[in-house]
Amino acid sequence: MIHLEGRITIEAALAAGRRRIEVILVKDGAHEEKLADLFAAAQRRNVAIKRVAGEELDRLAHGRTHGGVVAVCVPLPPTRERELLAQLDGLKSAPLLLLIEGSEDDRNLGFTLRSAEALGATAVLVKKHVLDFDETEVTRSSSGAFERLPWVRIDRETELLRELKRRGLALVACVAGAKRSIFDLDLRAPTLLAIGGEKRGLSGAVRDECTVFARIPMAAAVNGSSLSMSHAAAVLLGEAQRQRLTLPAA
Amino acid sequence: MIHLEGRITIEAALAAGRRRIEVILVKDGAHEEKLADLFAAAQRRNVAIKRVAGEELDRLAHGRTHGGVVAVCVPLPPTRERELLAQLDGLKSAPLLLLIEGSEDDRNLGFTLRSAEALGATAVLVKKHVLDFDETEVTRSSSGAFERLPWVRIDRETELLRELKRRGLALVACVAGAKRSIFDLDLRAPTLLAIGGEKRGLSGAVRDECTVFARIPMAAAVNGSSLSMSHAAAVLLGEAQRQRLTLPAA
Repeated sequence: MIHLEGRITIEAALAAGRRRIEVILVKDGAHEEKLADLFAAAQRRNVAIKRVAGEELDRLAHGRTHGGVVAVCVPLPPTRERELLAQLDGLKSAPLLLLIEGSEDDRNLGFTLRSAEALGATAVLVKKHVLDFDETEVTRSSSGAFERLPWVRIDRETELLRELKRRGLALVACVAGAKRSIFDLDLRAPTLLAIGGEKRGLSGAVRDECTVFARIPMAAAVNGSSLSMSHAAAVLLGEAQRQRLTLPAA
Repeated sequence: MIHLEGRITIEAALAAGRRRIEVILVKDGAHEEKLADLFAAAQRRNVAIKRVAGEELDRLAHGRTHGGVVAVCVPLPPTRERELLAQLDGLKSAPLLLLIEGSEDDRNLGFTLRSAEALGATAVLVKKHVLDFDETEVTRSSSGAFERLPWVRIDRETELLRELKRRGLALVACVAGAKRSIFDLDLRAPTLLAIGGEKRGLSGAVRDECTVFARIPMAAAVNGSSLSMSHAAAVLLGEAQRQRLTLPAA
């Protein structure tokens, strides 16, 4: 069992309905008027609400931002590769996938999922070793996106990446040294954007499958200046969103 | 006195030379071959290096990522408003300022400064109340950008914002409900981008001075999807960077 902390996260889990929630614990004396929507959603899903002492909740919670409400639930199962492929088959618009090979920490992984959802990514592929995470923290920092956005845990990436290429996706590796700028790419077409972690960058296995290499152009004359993984992802996805919204279809 | 933790941060502070560093503490038995550049820079600036026991360093440090090196130094003084205006006078390209009115925490403030520098912002204006921060944490998460990028602590913003308008800057308020999309703006011109905090958004005082209101278009049909302040800033600054690099001068 894991915990979800805070109203926004728990409401997202109830609305998405992708995992079983055993019980929702509410602190005695919490401001329950703010929880009316949550209580209604819990009732619709037949999830019990239990009042507990504040100290009990604090003992259970990882963070201090639960605001008096914690849900006890099963871990969220990742989307399977074949489910992802079925989803791509059913899409009416060009898929936009994000592949993450490294993340500094759980919070940045959560923020990346949040940006990916907000900026229209179809799904996020996460390397297996990144996914040794604290789900409570990822869900919370994702502001609920973790509950809604399909994410796929990838292990043997070569096979999946080749299948995506067969389906017509351009596989774009974002690497600092590339000659091409991301602003010169056509991101309206079916695309996977691959970003490495800050320490190691993209692995050879992923690079070998990528069809395009591009960099985010940094401001000139700044020594040592760079973007974090999650902020690089936001810039990339923002550019894809711009092209898809403002340019005629490819 | 405050502390700077980790090689990257301390090297950035030494290179920028904007604050006095009293002493650099290095853990006994640290991998000093990685610190050769830092030692050379310290010598150039006449900063003493002192070896201390690992426990002493751990006691001093906030985080666990100091990697065996901590600097004791004075706080970094903010850039004054008149210094900012003098800097704008000397610019050869159109200024791009970022105004932040709220930040969830020190880390996100640091990440925002890092993105601002990487994506070509001239300076960052930060509301006074945001600046009640833990400088150690901001510097570290900024990956050194805090040492290099001018940041101005603003208190009575009305006066400064009016002065910026007199100097021809467009003042763009980024607000979720705006009709215009940021992708329809011309960001090649002299611009200030204003972003509020996640909880309260932009204040009335700042909105009243803004000349343009625009939103970052979110993916359709996603309920509750949004960007964090620092990721919204990355998307905005990325779009300004794109326009300035790829379009003919305004």
